[in-house]
Amino acid sequence: MWRVRLAISLAHLNIGARLAHTAAMASVNRTAHPFDKSRLEALLNRRFFYAPAFEIYGGVAGLYDYGPPGSSLQANIIAEWRRHFIVEDHMLELDTTIMTPAPVFETSGHVARFADWMVKDEKTGDVLRADHLVKNVLQARLAGDLEARGFAADKVMEDEKKKKKKIKTTAVQLPDEVVKEYKSILAQLDNYSGPELGQLCRSHDIRNPDTGNQVGEPQQFNLMFASSIGPTGQHPGFLRPETAQGHFLNFSRLLEFNNGRIPFASAQIGKSFRNEISPRAGLLRVREFTMGEIEHYVDPENKSHARFAEVRHIVLPLLNRFVQESGSTQVTKMSIGAAVDRGIVANETLGYFLARIHLFLLKIGVDPRRLRFRQHMANEMAHYATDCWDAEIQNSSGWTECVGCADRAAYDLSVHSARTGHPLVVRQALKEPIVTEREVPEFNKKVLGKTLGRDAGLVQRVVGEMSQEELVRLKGELSQGSATISADEKQIALTPELLTIERKTFKQSNLNELFKSVNSFPNVIEPSFGFGRILYSLLEHSFWCREQDVERGVLSLPPLVAPTKVLIVPLSAKEEFDPLIEEVSMKLRRCGIFSRVDDSNTSIGKRYARNDELGTPYGVTLDFASLQNRTMTLRERDTTDQLIGSIDDVISVIMGLVHGALTWEDACTRLKAYGGVQAIE
Amino acid sequence: MWRVRLAISLAHLNIGARLAHTAAMASVNRTAHPFDKSRLEALLNRRFFYAPAFEIYGGVAGLYDYGPPGSSLQANIIAEWRRHFIVEDHMLELDTTIMTPAPVFETSGHVARFADWMVKDEKTGDVLRADHLVKNVLQARLAGDLEARGFAADKVMEDEKKKKKKIKTTAVQLPDEVVKEYKSILAQLDNYSGPELGQLCRSHDIRNPDTGNQVGEPQQFNLMFASSIGPTGQHPGFLRPETAQGHFLNFSRLLEFNNGRIPFASAQIGKSFRNEISPRAGLLRVREFTMGEIEHYVDPENKSHARFAEVRHIVLPLLNRFVQESGSTQVTKMSIGAAVDRGIVANETLGYFLARIHLFLLKIGVDPRRLRFRQHMANEMAHYATDCWDAEIQNSSGWTECVGCADRAAYDLSVHSARTGHPLVVRQALKEPIVTEREVPEFNKKVLGKTLGRDAGLVQRVVGEMSQEELVRLKGELSQGSATISADEKQIALTPELLTIERKTFKQSNLNELFKSVNSFPNVIEPSFGFGRILYSLLEHSFWCREQDVERGVLSLPPLVAPTKVLIVPLSAKEEFDPLIEEVSMKLRRCGIFSRVDDSNTSIGKRYARNDELGTPYGVTLDFASLQNRTMTLRERDTTDQLIGSIDDVISVIMGLVHGALTWEDACTRLKAYGGVQAIE
Repeated sequence: MWRVRLAISLAHLNIGARLAHTAAMASVNRTAHPFDKSRLEALLNRRFFYAPAFEIYGGVAGLYDYGPPGSSLQANIIAEWRRHFIVEDHMLELDTTIMTPAPVFETSGHVARFADWMVKDEKTGDVLRADHLVKNVLQARLAGDLEARGFAADKVMEDEKKKKKKIKTTAVQLPDEVVKEYKSILAQLDNYSGPELGQLCRSHDIRNPDTGNQVGEPQQFNLMFASSIGPTGQHPGFLRPETAQGHFLNFSRLLEFNNGRIPFASAQIGKSFRNEISPRAGLLRVREFTMGEIEHYVDPENKSHARFAEVRHIVLPLLNRFVQESGSTQVTKMSIGAAVDRGIVANETLGYFLARIHLFLLKIGVDPRRLRFRQHMANEMAHYATDCWDAEIQNSSGWTECVGCADRAAYDLSVHSARTGHPLVVRQALKEPIVTEREVPEFNKKVLGKTLGRDAGLVQRVVGEMSQEELVRLKGELSQGSATISADEKQIALTPELLTIERKTFKQSNLNELFKSVNSFPNVIEPSFGFGRILYSLLEHSFWCREQDVERGVLSLPPLVAPTKVLIVPLSAKEEFDPLIEEVSMKLRRCGIFSRVDDSNTSIGKRYARNDELGTPYGVTLDFASLQNRTMTLRERDTTDQLIGSIDDVISVIMGLVHGALTWEDACTRLKAYGGVQAIE
Repeated sequence: MWRVRLAISLAHLNIGARLAHTAAMASVNRTAHPFDKSRLEALLNRRFFYAPAFEIYGGVAGLYDYGPPGSSLQANIIAEWRRHFIVEDHMLELDTTIMTPAPVFETSGHVARFADWMVKDEKTGDVLRADHLVKNVLQARLAGDLEARGFAADKVMEDEKKKKKKIKTTAVQLPDEVVKEYKSILAQLDNYSGPELGQLCRSHDIRNPDTGNQVGEPQQFNLMFASSIGPTGQHPGFLRPETAQGHFLNFSRLLEFNNGRIPFASAQIGKSFRNEISPRAGLLRVREFTMGEIEHYVDPENKSHARFAEVRHIVLPLLNRFVQESGSTQVTKMSIGAAVDRGIVANETLGYFLARIHLFLLKIGVDPRRLRFRQHMANEMAHYATDCWDAEIQNSSGWTECVGCADRAAYDLSVHSARTGHPLVVRQALKEPIVTEREVPEFNKKVLGKTLGRDAGLVQRVVGEMSQEELVRLKGELSQGSATISADEKQIALTPELLTIERKTFKQSNLNELFKSVNSFPNVIEPSFGFGRILYSLLEHSFWCREQDVERGVLSLPPLVAPTKVLIVPLSAKEEFDPLIEEVSMKLRRCGIFSRVDDSNTSIGKRYARNDELGTPYGVTLDFASLQNRTMTLRERDTTDQLIGSIDDVISVIMGLVHGALTWEDACTRLKAYGGVQAIE
């Protein structure tokens, strides 16, 4: 489970920098225009990547629908996730229900603790998240202070003001000690409880910025959506806020499926729900979202990973807790092998997943320079976690947690076992059974009761708690005919008729009993992905505008995840092109390549521009030459280079490009450059 | 949207028949043992295809979790669905939210009408679905009657009794006229309203079969799960019971994405929820399920389909409404071309989808002889539908609706437009604008008010409602200086100063206005798939037991959808096999083939038997010969035939088999037959 948390930092809002991903794009100047979020948002809305759900009914905050390009992009990211994680590591996939009876979340701690603090505007009744209120108001005051001190023209600050347009920044200089105090409050915001946040609101006169009204005392608000199951309403239920509990409840079945052995991992892709108090950050904070979660079960005494050697050379940008606690956010680049060897990352399994997450994010097109792995500080971890690293991706909202990688230890399996009486433990065969001998007391219970009356129970308890040494001594005394033990300040006499002690042999043949002596349950390491946040960050990283015209936006999505791979552009909507369109379309389908035809009544240049916005990496044009010579041109989105060849050759090159077997440079050696009329856009 | 409805029919419970799908399996006797549902269920539970959700908490009726083989099977069916429908027909994919604000379902009619009738046991308060109660009790009485008349040993009836074990059948002969009455009630069960069902319970003394208690008056129970959105509970919401509304609300954006043209289709795969009253039929009636829905938008005046010619030869088993209304369930096999030509299927678009649904179901392994397309009778259609055909698959519960294919006409788009004021209509450019001329009255409102006082409004209304002919006449009179009109039994004088009438030219350049004259909105044809029902039916169709041992179950799932394609079986768990296992495993991964290693400490035969239960079509064995000669054997699941070849040759053959390029016969010509030790199982 990843907790919703946006690490917004003024220091990281330098969002103009954009660079090309591949050598093919080196000739394209993607930084000619600074990043403009409003342009990207207009594009995403215009091309229906996503839009507010129920828009024609006025919309509902925190609910978004994905349109065709957004859904395809999401489906392609998820398909790659399935290949990269599930198939590659033979994970056991699950699809468990969203609707969950209340007792499950009572046990997991979510009913009591999965909550945020909210405050109400004392006059309007508007509800605000308490920590966000404190943060936004103090940040606005600090911004006003900077302005008053003459930093008003600062570009970063302007951007910040635009983004938080609801909070008016007034240029008021603050006393130096107040600035210091505000900064200190902001730095430890995650540490405050509800009453403390209420105290902050009162002592610093923090009001609802929309109305200027005071706010009431913070109250806890549980983030789970409640419902009830069945016709009589007798079964309260919740929509899951994470998929994880569905894995844990099935642990015994999964273990059996895996022939009783650990380590292994289960994985699940599905929707989860959180009734956020006042969601406002687009896809970054929503009430319904698709996540991918992996639960990897390991021996708590041995968290090595069989495939760690394959990734140990991979260099990751790490930001560990000690660096953060020293007040710095300086990332260290280090091979994951070195990080595990030096104890910066706790164990190989955690390290393996961090490296695999890194590879996955790069593969789908995340800019490696805007990705870091940040370790949670001790005070910010969720109630079940013992260690946690987040993959944070930088976007215009700051560094955003997109993947959490937590060590949940044995928390969940042990609480569900305790509640249900169903032991979620491993019984793993040992290569050699461990043979031990122990003294075991056996009571003659009938005689014991008759002889000792109400002391019988007391005796059993005291003897039951004796160490092996004490039992040996007692056995010696009994062999003499009688013994006396002291219990509850009484002296009680025992005879061999009441109690015998014998040495017995025990054979431990499964790991369960070994576990019992240390921890009882396997530990769980959980990489948890929020696909909406990844998708949105990827869109920001992919967006740029052509040097010659800022109006011409491009989304340079890698072919692997691009919603449509090929655009088929006939010169005009004339029917004579229909057979060729159908042929090319069909041949691409047979190769498993998703294409679209655009035969709208507009210029080829405009049609290409529209598809640059959709992130379509390749375009083919059918013109009168195609009808005569069966040739076709191929256009690459980022460079706008065009090549020409026979229809079949072009399709074969596209197949290589889309499946990653060819680069654009390779394509340029296979097909001729084209500089014909179509190149004029 | 498909309505939950199981067509249970005693006549169709002859469920023993199972036959092979492909020529390769002709040598295997799959019908040696009659179908035994309890054996299949034990297998599915043992191998964790699916299991009751929250099992360790006692479970919740109607909620199931899919384990690894079930999730993979489902994911493979859905991936093929995406290729077969979305990619093939360039549909616009959507991913809209599950959580839906109440006004949407008020408009769509679900708040008022998406309900079942339930009755309460008067003593225990247990809740039963009224129509199911009547059906089950009357069917049990009819079964008891048959028994009393000497048909007790009837195999079909035994099966039926086993399945409905909660209703005790007592051998009581009924008067002939009662038998006739019961049969008539059962035949029209879907026709009864709640009060009528209550009347039936009273007049036929229908009681709760579990307790023998009377039941109360039927009450409507809405099947949607309710929740509320946001922290103050002010926004009531429901979990969607179908994905369709999410399509309709986005219609304008989808249309724009499609360059403003129809026909086109949107498609969505996702979870929906129905709070069933008392779900009891395994995966066939659940409270949370994954569905795939297509909404195809067409011109109401032209429901032809551009690709119909590609499917017109396909022969479908059709059961139309007239045959059913005549009391028969005789299927007619007919090409879809002929069915559309003869008007049995209403239009090409509906016909195109029926044929495509048929191809899809066959491709994933549904037995063509247990599939039919049944047209809804007039009285059983949902509130929005004007025509509907269900793809019904026969399984041990009878003929089960697995895909609904409804013509929703303009219902949804028009009700949402009316409620929101947002016109969900098509504005399609016409090739030639239509130019019309009309007489248009124009009032001089200032003077009109002064002159006529309270009659001014009356005059405007009356003139506004005049026909063109009347306006021409009035214009003629006004040109003479004055005119008189009669309104509300008054005669009112008008002058050219008050009113002028002029002939104006209107240019209609988009289809919207054309639509307005006939229907205003595009029509919607909706194929709607319940993946859980398809998956369960497919499992029944794939299940059989080996002739030599009824305990050895096999799931003959096609490689296309089989959860795992290849099982890698090392002779033993000895470490010397590890490098080869890793090599084979890695090479299969690189070909995109999902494999699993089984190195458990059990015989190869037992490991193969386990994987026959999992439906794994191919197995490769690594033994000492593999270490020495780099050879590997390849086993086919259904025939248990084994072939041998070099590791790379075997992998290349597997690739061909899994991707459908090779049949097992082809494989037999590419690799040598193997009869070595591994063949002994």
